[in-house]
Amino acid sequence: MTSSFLSLEGAIRAVGALDEEAMARAQGRQDQLTKPRGSLGRLEELSIRLAGIGGQERPRLSQKAIITMAGDHGVVAEGVSAYPQEVTPQMVYNFLRGGAGINVLARHIGARVVVVDMGVAAPLESHPQLVLKKVAPGTRDMSKGPAMSRKQALQAVEVGIEVLEEELRKGLDIVGTGDMGIGNTTASSAIAAVFTGEPVERLTGRGTGLDEAGLARKVAVINRALLVNQPVPGDPLDVLSKVGGFELGGLAGVMLGAAAHRIPVVVDGFISGAAALIACGLCPGLRDFLIASHVSAEPGHRVILRHLGLRPLLDLGMRLGEGTGACLGIFLCEAACRLLDEMATFGEAGVSGKLG
Amino acid sequence: MTSSFLSLEGAIRAVGALDEEAMARAQGRQDQLTKPRGSLGRLEELSIRLAGIGGQERPRLSQKAIITMAGDHGVVAEGVSAYPQEVTPQMVYNFLRGGAGINVLARHIGARVVVVDMGVAAPLESHPQLVLKKVAPGTRDMSKGPAMSRKQALQAVEVGIEVLEEELRKGLDIVGTGDMGIGNTTASSAIAAVFTGEPVERLTGRGTGLDEAGLARKVAVINRALLVNQPVPGDPLDVLSKVGGFELGGLAGVMLGAAAHRIPVVVDGFISGAAALIACGLCPGLRDFLIASHVSAEPGHRVILRHLGLRPLLDLGMRLGEGTGACLGIFLCEAACRLLDEMATFGEAGVSGKLG
Repeated sequence: MTSSFLSLEGAIRAVGALDEEAMARAQGRQDQLTKPRGSLGRLEELSIRLAGIGGQERPRLSQKAIITMAGDHGVVAEGVSAYPQEVTPQMVYNFLRGGAGINVLARHIGARVVVVDMGVAAPLESHPQLVLKKVAPGTRDMSKGPAMSRKQALQAVEVGIEVLEEELRKGLDIVGTGDMGIGNTTASSAIAAVFTGEPVERLTGRGTGLDEAGLARKVAVINRALLVNQPVPGDPLDVLSKVGGFELGGLAGVMLGAAAHRIPVVVDGFISGAAALIACGLCPGLRDFLIASHVSAEPGHRVILRHLGLRPLLDLGMRLGEGTGACLGIFLCEAACRLLDEMATFGEAGVSGKLG
Repeated sequence: MTSSFLSLEGAIRAVGALDEEAMARAQGRQDQLTKPRGSLGRLEELSIRLAGIGGQERPRLSQKAIITMAGDHGVVAEGVSAYPQEVTPQMVYNFLRGGAGINVLARHIGARVVVVDMGVAAPLESHPQLVLKKVAPGTRDMSKGPAMSRKQALQAVEVGIEVLEEELRKGLDIVGTGDMGIGNTTASSAIAAVFTGEPVERLTGRGTGLDEAGLARKVAVINRALLVNQPVPGDPLDVLSKVGGFELGGLAGVMLGAAAHRIPVVVDGFISGAAALIACGLCPGLRDFLIASHVSAEPGHRVILRHLGLRPLLDLGMRLGEGTGACLGIFLCEAACRLLDEMATFGEAGVSGKLG
């Protein structure tokens, strides 16, 4: 069977290095713009990295998408979430009607929202804006065995690559990641524990709003899942299959597919960060194509970002997911690129340079 | 002589308290929206403060302006800036042609830029978008005596109120402050030293890019200005007249005028922060109407924000001024209000609430 989409192997092979020459040209232009050198701070750095990703001196980001992937988690049977599992499909319908936080922020930045069913437990009604890619109706309870098979883990990642490539055909200059899935902070904390080696306690938060007892139960469940499954840190597909989720695998695929096509990826919060750990485990060079939009209020996110060597742009105490932080990050990326592209140079504006 | 504009006294009297009832209603709505409570972090807080400023449960921010005020500083004769004084009018023309950083970011957020000549040393050609309010062609050298008379200081603040009220007539839901003036970090550090009581060394940075020797000279010049003038911290107009600048007084007036009319003010960086010290000195209740967009790379800015009890939204290492940080802050304010206004409630979306 031949496919027009990249395989995981193919995507990994396609991820290249940043374009140093484009970055040098972008830096040269920054230094000619009518402002003291460096005075736009991280917006200047961002514009230069975006130049290196896209291979253009003056990148333009007109076509923007947030890919929000949904999936359910068998582990919710252990009482690890403050909300019932039915909220996952209910929120998917909310996305499709335009009433969720992600819809509002995506409209605010002029991005489209691509909602993907990666593995929602309930059957979803078809809808023109819903991308149906269900791997299975929810994962199995990871505290009792692997969340999914290795084959399903690979499928989830390759589906993510496929979704990205489908969006690329519609036109895509930058992509943001987003998630929805009751129980997915539990899976993300487990993934973070495997890759960073930090204790589960440090990496686990209240998710949608657990109380003290709920938090203790969640930590115990994650520790049990790690003990039962023994995920192998050097084998990211093993980690994904044992303690991951379908939307997490899909988001890892989105990141790999984007990097393979030199599209910058604006990473949302904690769940997207866990997906980035898997994706960077599969392909360390991917890291240069990732932009951390914000640091979440979930305590594990800071640890993930440090492990990946990513510095977040924003720190606003957000913890909603869906891609809401990614929207704000995309706004800043576009601001950075427009400044690089549209500002006048000292020569053009007839402004005197520095003294001495 | 009667004027249709508020006097300084009148503006101070008009500044009221936040509308607690509107804030309670906004909080009530936030808690019904389809997200875990508090999960939008500082965006939720921001929406509630904006409700309290405007006195509306669901504030809408469609008409946005950045008021960028320009002025020159006699103290540049002492060699305190890395750029020559002629850059002030050159940059004003750059603003009017749309080529500066502020123009790009204002376009990006859909705001108009109002460029005001508060006291540029050179005569400026008239231009449909240039507001001519020159108090005098630059201040006097504050290291040798007062930068301006007390009468000019009052005039600068009242002109700021007038500019704000003129914009209000055109339609204004939120305003950002911005500045241009070679030498104005020197005046701002002096103002910050008077109000915060911190040593000048801690409050003084490289501005547009001084070297080590230039920075030492700048600190010495500021210390001399404070010694020669003995500004009185309890008398903000005295401080403004002795070590201030025309654009700084004007921006203080913009803030007062906005608060008097319950328009939220998004404060830019270090220069705007110094203007906020003067404005809050004149009217402590003003503080609740100010939103700190970002913390600048200029070291004194963090001290100013702490003194005012304002927590910046962004920390991106920016130090350009012009209102560039304020633009990013306005974007976040608008995002916060749109989330409050446009998100569906649990009831509307048919999403289940929290367990237990």
